[in-house]
Amino acid sequence: MAGRILLLVLSMNVIFFIVNAVPETCPADLGEKCGVDGEWEGEFFPGIPKIKYEGPSTKNPLAYKWYNAEEVILGEKMKDWLRFSVAFWHTFRGTGADPFGAPTKYWPWEDGTNSIAMAKRRMRANFEFLNKLGVDRWCFHDRDIAPDGKTLQETNSNLDEVVALAKELQGDKIRPLWGTAQLFMHPRYMHGAATSSELGVYAFAAAQVKKAMEVTHYLGGENYVFWGGREGYQTLLNTDMERELDHLARFLEAAVAYKKKIGFNGTLLIEPKPQEPTKHQYDWDAATTLNFLRKYGLLGEFQYLSDPNSAFQMIVDNSVVFVNHGEFKLNIECNHATLSGHSCHHDLETARINGLLGNIDANTGDPQVGWDTDQFMTDIGEATMVMLSVIKNGGLAPGGFNFDAKLRRESTDVEDLFIAHISGMDTLARGLRNAAKLIEDGSLAELVRKRYSSFDTELGGQIEAGKADFEMLEKKAMEGGEPKVASAKQELAEMIFQSAL
Amino acid sequence: MAGRILLLVLSMNVIFFIVNAVPETCPADLGEKCGVDGEWEGEFFPGIPKIKYEGPSTKNPLAYKWYNAEEVILGEKMKDWLRFSVAFWHTFRGTGADPFGAPTKYWPWEDGTNSIAMAKRRMRANFEFLNKLGVDRWCFHDRDIAPDGKTLQETNSNLDEVVALAKELQGDKIRPLWGTAQLFMHPRYMHGAATSSELGVYAFAAAQVKKAMEVTHYLGGENYVFWGGREGYQTLLNTDMERELDHLARFLEAAVAYKKKIGFNGTLLIEPKPQEPTKHQYDWDAATTLNFLRKYGLLGEFQYLSDPNSAFQMIVDNSVVFVNHGEFKLNIECNHATLSGHSCHHDLETARINGLLGNIDANTGDPQVGWDTDQFMTDIGEATMVMLSVIKNGGLAPGGFNFDAKLRRESTDVEDLFIAHISGMDTLARGLRNAAKLIEDGSLAELVRKRYSSFDTELGGQIEAGKADFEMLEKKAMEGGEPKVASAKQELAEMIFQSAL
Amino acid sequence: MAGRILLLVLSMNVIFFIVNAVPETCPADLGEKCGVDGEWEGEFFPGIPKIKYEGPSTKNPLAYKWYNAEEVILGEKMKDWLRFSVAFWHTFRGTGADPFGAPTKYWPWEDGTNSIAMAKRRMRANFEFLNKLGVDRWCFHDRDIAPDGKTLQETNSNLDEVVALAKELQGDKIRPLWGTAQLFMHPRYMHGAATSSELGVYAFAAAQVKKAMEVTHYLGGENYVFWGGREGYQTLLNTDMERELDHLARFLEAAVAYKKKIGFNGTLLIEPKPQEPTKHQYDWDAATTLNFLRKYGLLGEFQYLSDPNSAFQMIVDNSVVFVNHGEFKLNIECNHATLSGHSCHHDLETARINGLLGNIDANTGDPQVGWDTDQFMTDIGEATMVMLSVIKNGGLAPGGFNFDAKLRRESTDVEDLFIAHISGMDTLARGLRNAAKLIEDGSLAELVRKRYSSFDTELGGQIEAGKADFEMLEKKAMEGGEPKVASAKQELAEMIFQSAL
Amino acid sequence: MAGRILLLVLSMNVIFFIVNAVPETCPADLGEKCGVDGEWEGEFFPGIPKIKYEGPSTKNPLAYKWYNAEEVILGEKMKDWLRFSVAFWHTFRGTGADPFGAPTKYWPWEDGTNSIAMAKRRMRANFEFLNKLGVDRWCFHDRDIAPDGKTLQETNSNLDEVVALAKELQGDKIRPLWGTAQLFMHPRYMHGAATSSELGVYAFAAAQVKKAMEVTHYLGGENYVFWGGREGYQTLLNTDMERELDHLARFLEAAVAYKKKIGFNGTLLIEPKPQEPTKHQYDWDAATTLNFLRKYGLLGEFQYLSDPNSAFQMIVDNSVVFVNHGEFKLNIECNHATLSGHSCHHDLETARINGLLGNIDANTGDPQVGWDTDQFMTDIGEATMVMLSVIKNGGLAPGGFNFDAKLRRESTDVEDLFIAHISGMDTLARGLRNAAKLIEDGSLAELVRKRYSSFDTELGGQIEAGKADFEMLEKKAMEGGEPKVASAKQELAEMIFQSAL
Repeated sequence: MAGRILLLVLSMNVIFFIVNAVPETCPADLGEKCGVDGEWEGEFFPGIPKIKYEGPSTKNPLAYKWYNAEEVILGEKMKDWLRFSVAFWHTFRGTGADPFGAPTKYWPWEDGTNSIAMAKRRMRANFEFLNKLGVDRWCFHDRDIAPDGKTLQETNSNLDEVVALAKELQGDKIRPLWGTAQLFMHPRYMHGAATSSELGVYAFAAAQVKKAMEVTHYLGGENYVFWGGREGYQTLLNTDMERELDHLARFLEAAVAYKKKIGFNGTLLIEPKPQEPTKHQYDWDAATTLNFLRKYGLLGEFQYLSDPNSAFQMIVDNSVVFVNHGEFKLNIECNHATLSGHSCHHDLETARINGLLGNIDANTGDPQVGWDTDQFMTDIGEATMVMLSVIKNGGLAPGGFNFDAKLRRESTDVEDLFIAHISGMDTLARGLRNAAKLIEDGSLAELVRKRYSSFDTELGGQIEAGKADFEMLEKKAMEGGEPKVASAKQELAEMIFQSAL
Repeated sequence: MAGRILLLVLSMNVIFFIVNAVPETCPADLGEKCGVDGEWEGEFFPGIPKIKYEGPSTKNPLAYKWYNAEEVILGEKMKDWLRFSVAFWHTFRGTGADPFGAPTKYWPWEDGTNSIAMAKRRMRANFEFLNKLGVDRWCFHDRDIAPDGKTLQETNSNLDEVVALAKELQGDKIRPLWGTAQLFMHPRYMHGAATSSELGVYAFAAAQVKKAMEVTHYLGGENYVFWGGREGYQTLLNTDMERELDHLARFLEAAVAYKKKIGFNGTLLIEPKPQEPTKHQYDWDAATTLNFLRKYGLLGEFQYLSDPNSAFQMIVDNSVVFVNHGEFKLNIECNHATLSGHSCHHDLETARINGLLGNIDANTGDPQVGWDTDQFMTDIGEATMVMLSVIKNGGLAPGGFNFDAKLRRESTDVEDLFIAHISGMDTLARGLRNAAKLIEDGSLAELVRKRYSSFDTELGGQIEAGKADFEMLEKKAMEGGEPKVASAKQELAEMIFQSAL
Repeated sequence: MAGRILLLVLSMNVIFFIVNAVPETCPADLGEKCGVDGEWEGEFFPGIPKIKYEGPSTKNPLAYKWYNAEEVILGEKMKDWLRFSVAFWHTFRGTGADPFGAPTKYWPWEDGTNSIAMAKRRMRANFEFLNKLGVDRWCFHDRDIAPDGKTLQETNSNLDEVVALAKELQGDKIRPLWGTAQLFMHPRYMHGAATSSELGVYAFAAAQVKKAMEVTHYLGGENYVFWGGREGYQTLLNTDMERELDHLARFLEAAVAYKKKIGFNGTLLIEPKPQEPTKHQYDWDAATTLNFLRKYGLLGEFQYLSDPNSAFQMIVDNSVVFVNHGEFKLNIECNHATLSGHSCHHDLETARINGLLGNIDANTGDPQVGWDTDQFMTDIGEATMVMLSVIKNGGLAPGGFNFDAKLRRESTDVEDLFIAHISGMDTLARGLRNAAKLIEDGSLAELVRKRYSSFDTELGGQIEAGKADFEMLEKKAMEGGEPKVASAKQELAEMIFQSAL
Repeated sequence: MAGRILLLVLSMNVIFFIVNAVPETCPADLGEKCGVDGEWEGEFFPGIPKIKYEGPSTKNPLAYKWYNAEEVILGEKMKDWLRFSVAFWHTFRGTGADPFGAPTKYWPWEDGTNSIAMAKRRMRANFEFLNKLGVDRWCFHDRDIAPDGKTLQETNSNLDEVVALAKELQGDKIRPLWGTAQLFMHPRYMHGAATSSELGVYAFAAAQVKKAMEVTHYLGGENYVFWGGREGYQTLLNTDMERELDHLARFLEAAVAYKKKIGFNGTLLIEPKPQEPTKHQYDWDAATTLNFLRKYGLLGEFQYLSDPNSAFQMIVDNSVVFVNHGEFKLNIECNHATLSGHSCHHDLETARINGLLGNIDANTGDPQVGWDTDQFMTDIGEATMVMLSVIKNGGLAPGGFNFDAKLRRESTDVEDLFIAHISGMDTLARGLRNAAKLIEDGSLAELVRKRYSSFDTELGGQIEAGKADFEMLEKKAMEGGEPKVASAKQELAEMIFQSAL
């Protein structure tokens, strides 16, 4: 190797910047895995079999205890309810670095470079991983699958080269659940991307999203995600929040236009997060993001006398109709929800009842910790509540469950990658089984139905139709005397819920 | 007195429930204050003079150090920027009770009853307090100024009697900043008011709001507030969140209709609070509340070809126009903002840039404490940021600053009521002076203007007009190379800010 | 005034102040339950049977699914591992009041007074409740079982009267797990009890603790608890923290002396809580409390050449020996632990490894809520971790599990009291079964043992004996080169743990 | 491999791993600054003058507004009260990386390597910075001033080379406030250093501390710090907390022994932090750390019949005396205090009244953010409270104020380094002036004194001497009747405090 290699290893765990010469051959220290042509030979995960369902009583850590892909639950196969996806960045670019510590993971297939050859080898490892897990979807940022070049043109060309390989490796079965552009790691994005104070950065971000959207479309991706990790502020003292939000809205409008132009039919998913890395991110939580989308008309358009039977409509008055164009939905991440002060279940339900639950980033945080820990979900109760929302939503398709979760920094065995995913998948599978049990049992739903039954009356109907004015209601109150108020039966509801676990 | 008196003293500090006989005469143990006719004689606050401005160097705790009502700052009198209001409930019904402790305040004018006579005496104390402080506005809940009766009819009649006295005592000068209905204390509201699972409670709440709105209108109130302390849930397991939110929207629609019917022109203010008493309140923060208002069309209507020059308009497309009917604004409480994970400044700015900053509940929380402490604001930096928002908003009128703040439980001298208000008023007055200094100096605004100056260009204009598509932007990015990104100068901004304090 | 004045002071849910006449007879509005002699007739919980174990598959909410008192787990009966206790205050004095709401519970046996007759009737209800649940222990504050009198003498005599009945009702089987003095509700304690700035209050608190200890002893109580709800500060600006802590230490010394004097052998349990009602409580968490106890020598004494074989000893040097006199242990409450930023498991382990885990207040908080919610524990994972600590501790005796947990305010049926306790007991019983499964399986313990096995060597032994100095260690490091560091296997540990649930 | 491989590991902002060739000459791209011999020529901060005091009215950002080093306040020079120190790591190794972002700082003197030549150039920049600021102290980790070598021996020799230069540059005036070993960044420390599950790591850490202590001593450092960033756990499931704490105690004992052996008289400072990077760190806060030190006898020894007049003594009983050997004190960091749920003032006072306030890491966090932001303190109120503690402590010497604070990631101008430090120094200087004003005014102290005056009596004296038993106190309570309880006057205290700002 003749050149100079500069590896910037980041705590977000992505090696993103590389230069000069890249090793075209398999590095000597990879040992016997290094074939004659310098390419990796044989399996990346040699000791690991294809993971199979063995049921709850198995002691085998490399087997599913609850996830049985083809088993039918509530009329659908488990794999169709769950639509699992592996996150390329955490699994293949995670280094174990944190704000106080250097990388800890040295996967055997890594040669210490950020070359295109390395990117391709890593992509092969990814597909072996997917196949061994029996998972059909994957998610990626543009910058974690291919190295930056010296210019945008070169960067795009690097991306194309790796993407071509990914397309081939995908075969008939595997597709991206979603793709996205990484708009937070590079120093140019330090003030934001679409909300940067610098016009040049806004333009750069647009170019990057354009390319990432093309690539996602090319690979057959079903969705495209926006996570605005730098779209926020560190202090209001130096920030024009209104102008930044205006820019963000314009950026998303342009994204919709481009999506249509290239015929990409995937959903645009916005992923809320309250803070970290910035003090305040504009997509704080589901409700905040929805307010933004509504304020700027991004959820739909208002049309005069349009067809009231078209999909996603809400009649505002007799002549004007709101047409939700259905471009945007939300990608709710559990750890982000809890950082914003909500249960994951709450933010899922908020998205759902606004008609916009599109995808779930399946992870969990530590309830005592004030930052994103991105752990694999292992709490059965939480998983059961998550699945209750998913079932009420009629499933997530074309979205799914993406494991935006990473190994702990201290977990450094290759098998830990499998154990973590198996544990996360089993937890959600168990949640699905529990939720189905609850639904089939019916007593929790009945408890809720009964609580509101006073509205299942004539006056209730009038109220719900907006036909009960204050005078009518006052008359009712005067005549009715002190209203009866029943017990909320929270402890009973909790008992029923726990019994299903 | 022959009857049985039942005093329920609550930790929200309001004696709300009274029965049977009420003492028509001044209780014997009030001593010399008790006149021949059983009415209180002389002053309620005998040792306390009218509070005057003495300037920053005074050591007199019963004088203003920074608040000089008639002094002109940035073209307006301090009193017009600040529009202070005393909260009747904290100041006259606060008992010092907390979840672990009994009442601690025994104001000399209280006779231990919740009679109408007591309510009137208390109202007189309120107006002496306002006059001595030199404050022209007050805020009230229906239930803290007059006792409940055995029926709604009797309750309303009690209210009328006390309100008639308040009207008289108000004279020409004093008016309610706002009134509101207390829909959280009574057990009937335990599941919510407009979002109760019980229809009878919904009707009762409507009747109560109807009356409170009438009374506020009668007293010349400038606004009407909704704080939904029970509009939320304790657990999603027993809750139909979607149905509850639908009911809330219907309730607010009916309120708008009734407001118009009686010719009440005051703004309807919604006061967000994230939680407490419930685990989750639907009006979590400014953004969440705005999403709700937008979702249900409560901010305005869509009209075909209406006059684009009318106030509060946002053109959605060429033919359909959004007309904000201006009925709703937000009442931002600082302690609620911080409980929801935001700085007070943030939630004020969120309300402001959505055009909906209507009023401020001026208090502060303890940054280490997870519940509403409702302390008088004493932090100069926070007050300065609050006043920057108010100035950018062009003031708050017809809203103002309501001191939704209470004495600490352990502060039990009558003079503490004055000291606390003086301190709170001085803090905001000092904030106003500092904010004016910052604005007059101009260097902070200039720092912000400069940060975004790359958008003050032709391409910037196109972007902001929604005319820059991804292809145009990509071209710019390809040609421009790596964009320059300037320092955010946060430390300089902080230095400038601190210099003004 | 001829009538009855009743002050119901809520939110902490204890009626504490009563005056004038008290009804000696059964109030008319109690209806048919009112016997000829004015005493309650028949059962308090007429529809509720004695609760039995029916196993996990039962749908009966009034049956145990996991708690089978006599079943042996890891060599001991479930009832002996769990030593459940009902908290009199929450169950019989909880009114449902909160800082924003009035009482919601109207139990049929309550007559609206705080009379001695009422106190006795309530005590009978308590014992029927204990018997129907099959629980042998109860906990009480002095002030929740008997009303205040006009003087301390009268108050003590009221207490004696009710305690005599309790003694009779206890019979052979039932005993207090612990008693305590309520030193936080009355306004006299607003600045603290042992840490009050007023000497008179310090003395009053001493008198109250003296009596409460005597009463606990008389009833055969096994422990005595100190919860310092007001031992803290609201602001350091007006507080002499050092002097207050000195006073607290002197108070506890006097308590130890009095305990010995009356021959009370129960453990003195200190219950940490970080804050609420005050901003900062001195017994913040387990570690903070331990620092306090150690600083003031409250954990033991140092003796010259004392018998090194006596219990509770730690040799400090050759000639001086620390004798832990074993008077104090900790009562860890799960909700308090989480409010202080720890998992419940963490604070239990902190207490345990300091040799001072004495009792558990079994409840849980809401991870999204910043105040004490005192909910019944329903999380199986948490319960399993709690039981792991208890088993490692060799059980809790003479302490146990006290249900310091209350019905939600909105749960207003009498049966809810049973459902809540059954649910809480079953959760811990299930935790015990899971913990036993984990221990019998052994693979989690083996994983931990293996992690530290490098210290099970000669050099490890030297290090642990304090015989490895820096020079020896440096030599080892120089010779050894870069040390090997194994994976922490956290995901595997979590998988094993979850498999036991 | 002929080229250069460079690993820039970010986020904690320290380049820690370096390889192969290092540039011995000044890199070409440093341009004109590159002298003939390859060394940097002229100033590192060419546009920046020596910072002078210009007083509060100056608009010059590069001047002190409140810090006037030689001015005497309360009998001491400002510089002696404040004893400022620059933290080498943040100021010279901070890269601006964060968990989601790459480095943003490209200081002109950096050549992109982690060579010894670069380390020396950086050290020269450090001393120019200190001199221009007029600060006489600096703090460092071993690993941020010199690069790792391939072996411990080589690493130590690298350190010696750079330290020799530092010694020379220090001259007569400048000294380290403290040094420390960085035991958290390298992957070998991922499970802890003194608490690692691996014996080899424990030994390595000991060797590293040994060397760092020697180097600190050689440079004339006044203190040595332990910050246990990895001494904690990620989950209790795989952790033997008791054994880890035992190891930590043994490690600190060995440190004391070695300190004495080499004649280093500096204080050993332990710096608490509750969490981050781990879920739980053993030195959670001041009180937790103190419990640990006391439990393991690290604060002192117990001696029979020793001289009761020697310093730091607390008599436990008549014959045995506790001798605080004074080796350990605490280094309180404000941002760490707030992360643990306390105000900074609280943790300072906790350290102070335990006699162990040794040093302050002067920074501040964001009250809405759950991780360490390490911002320069700019809050005047907080600074005033900090200085009140320092004055009560009689100053901090031999400790001082170390600016453990960093530029925001987005602040990328060289001058920002100066602005940030000036702003931080001015804030504390202003705090000192305010605290002096409060002390000279005396009314706040008088308010506190008066609150406790009931203990300045005969009975108060008996209580404080441990001579008032429960019977004596009960008698007092019985005779005294209901005690009088005065107002806490919190609002007045806050008013007085604010008036001094």
